[in-house]
Amino acid sequence: MFEFRIDARSGSARTGTLTLPHGSVETPLFMPVGTQGTVRALSPNDLRGVGATMVLANAYHLHVRPGEEVVGNLGGLHRFMGWDRPLLTDSGGFQVFSLAGFRRVDEDGVEFQSHVDGSRRTVTPERATEIQWTLGADIAMAFDHVVPGGADLATARDALERTLRWLERCGKRHRELREGDGMTERRKGDAGGATAQSPSPFRPSVIPSQSQTLWPILQGGAHLELRTAGLRRILDLGSWTGLAIGGLSVGEPKPAMYEMLEGLEPGLPPPLPRYLMGVGFPGDLVAAVERGVDLFDCVAPTRNGRNGSAFTPDGPVNIRNAEHREDARPLDETCDCETCTTFSRGYLRHLFVTDELLGLRLLSLHNVRYVIRLAAAMRAAIRRNAFGSWAEEWRRRYLEPRSA
Amino acid sequence: MFEFRIDARSGSARTGTLTLPHGSVETPLFMPVGTQGTVRALSPNDLRGVGATMVLANAYHLHVRPGEEVVGNLGGLHRFMGWDRPLLTDSGGFQVFSLAGFRRVDEDGVEFQSHVDGSRRTVTPERATEIQWTLGADIAMAFDHVVPGGADLATARDALERTLRWLERCGKRHRELREGDGMTERRKGDAGGATAQSPSPFRPSVIPSQSQTLWPILQGGAHLELRTAGLRRILDLGSWTGLAIGGLSVGEPKPAMYEMLEGLEPGLPPPLPRYLMGVGFPGDLVAAVERGVDLFDCVAPTRNGRNGSAFTPDGPVNIRNAEHREDARPLDETCDCETCTTFSRGYLRHLFVTDELLGLRLLSLHNVRYVIRLAAAMRAAIRRNAFGSWAEEWRRRYLEPRSA
Repeated sequence: MFEFRIDARSGSARTGTLTLPHGSVETPLFMPVGTQGTVRALSPNDLRGVGATMVLANAYHLHVRPGEEVVGNLGGLHRFMGWDRPLLTDSGGFQVFSLAGFRRVDEDGVEFQSHVDGSRRTVTPERATEIQWTLGADIAMAFDHVVPGGADLATARDALERTLRWLERCGKRHRELREGDGMTERRKGDAGGATAQSPSPFRPSVIPSQSQTLWPILQGGAHLELRTAGLRRILDLGSWTGLAIGGLSVGEPKPAMYEMLEGLEPGLPPPLPRYLMGVGFPGDLVAAVERGVDLFDCVAPTRNGRNGSAFTPDGPVNIRNAEHREDARPLDETCDCETCTTFSRGYLRHLFVTDELLGLRLLSLHNVRYVIRLAAAMRAAIRRNAFGSWAEEWRRRYLEPRSA
Repeated sequence: MFEFRIDARSGSARTGTLTLPHGSVETPLFMPVGTQGTVRALSPNDLRGVGATMVLANAYHLHVRPGEEVVGNLGGLHRFMGWDRPLLTDSGGFQVFSLAGFRRVDEDGVEFQSHVDGSRRTVTPERATEIQWTLGADIAMAFDHVVPGGADLATARDALERTLRWLERCGKRHRELREGDGMTERRKGDAGGATAQSPSPFRPSVIPSQSQTLWPILQGGAHLELRTAGLRRILDLGSWTGLAIGGLSVGEPKPAMYEMLEGLEPGLPPPLPRYLMGVGFPGDLVAAVERGVDLFDCVAPTRNGRNGSAFTPDGPVNIRNAEHREDARPLDETCDCETCTTFSRGYLRHLFVTDELLGLRLLSLHNVRYVIRLAAAMRAAIRRNAFGSWAEEWRRRYLEPRSA
């Protein structure tokens, strides 16, 4: 049910096939982000239409609204959001540490204030695991302690150590759930720190029948010595089906991220798929694949799309610019998406200038198609063992100053 | 190119086929409203998917942004908005009299302030005709003077008389344009009252090659004697391919609208398609078809959809209500649209509660599908000459207080 096969290599870059309960996906893979159980402005049909094979949703957001019990009672996350292909849920660690106004971290877990209604909630590693189990994605993520990009060694070490201890607890709870151990009883125990706002205890009826795997998240800030030590500890803790690199692309300088990836690569077991969380922009995807990464997620394609910024092979285009007013050309002449095959830049600009909803969707759709085509192009370059020269050529065009 | 054939009758209700340059459409027909050249939140593919055959766009809005010259230079309105089926443009009369902050009406036309940037603009009957000619919809509407629903006899008569004089001028200008008379020269003459904000004069290159027909608009407020006199005058003015009834559903009591329709019906030449502008809600469509109306447009399906209100055979449903929280049923069990065949009420409620863009689209899509299926059901009832009993049954269900 959980298998990763490497199909080809080119330098450190790899292309492979990841098999999950809801289907097989090819890597390098970009996952569009459906934070609240919907990829903003896009429907499941849109996503299938642009070739998306796997989507990310967020356990924190779905716990806050509508509550994982509601999703479970409505048949689980796949059915809830109308997505029948693989899904991954992030654990909520990142959100707890970036969105919540108030938070208190201790060894047990995190008490925080909901960013929606200010209610106090407590999430422990066990609770984060249960929430994701109820949601029922193919891949669940361990609950992690994320620190800002510039965190000093002591802070980063403290968060890494906590994340490792929490990983053990996530792994234990996940094993129990997989083995069908009585969830209701456990929940009562865990709920000790929870407030009146916490959802009611688990009902066994909402336990999804689908299998699910749990991936660890490696923290350690921009400190390679922490990262390499953390990696060894993670690998000692269990036999994982994949591994995520978290806490990068959170404010640190870009060379630091590349340094971490290069430093980690030799220690990463080749058979494990590597997921670089929250990355990224087209240039970051290319650079990370070059350094051995297999999976990505990022809100950039949809968020930038909603802001009127479109990815093209010649770099980003701001569709609001007056130069597009009477431009009959498509956004991206090389693209096969609905936006590019149907509408002119002039029309797309009109939609943004007049604040029409269709514009948000059409640029999001194109941008997601763009990164999915980019991933496909990378897979092809790896298969012909020419990733280095392909990446050089790609960068030359993407970064070149454009002529009008 | 412009033909209307009545296929069946049931009482005053008729079903027919209207042939236009971009295809044939069946009546009774509901046109979704694409005010700014886009039906809010829906793509042309969505519209085709729910069976829309004809769409309305607004000359006033497209004149203000992006300017009809831009649309013309980008290939005309059909190509601009990616819609290859019939289009109708409203003249802008209604908008000038409802949206503009400042306005000054005289015999020549209307000077008004753009609702977008406050710039002063002048639209004359000739100018409104030219704008629509450049946009190139299948049907253009005459420029009319619209008064509020409660207007007294003198005010309504004054606006009706002006609308009739303007109709003559629209008709004359439209004939000249059809005959290819030098537009550039004419524009210079008309531009006398225009300000610096007015767009540059017509260039012959933007004259669409498509044929276009012009429909008159009957005004007269809620005064039947004005309406019947106005109708006779319109019919004396030319040989039209259709006729619109304007200035209803603008604040007058509903029985007044029905009274106007019933009073006008005997005087309406059967071979002319009848278009009731700005109507309406499901109950209004049924009542108006019962009184001999063929075409409709209204923002209600999309606007209500964006507000979370969905049409169903059992009356409107507010999807935000807490009762839908864990409701696994579709919005409308009888509906075949993407929304109803894919998503639960619980998920749709979640999208609205979390302000997700997909919710706006999914409810708009369903509501448009709902009125299009309603029109199809009406056509079927007319064909079996059973419109009266069908309408009674429909109302019984739609208006019945619902059980939970």
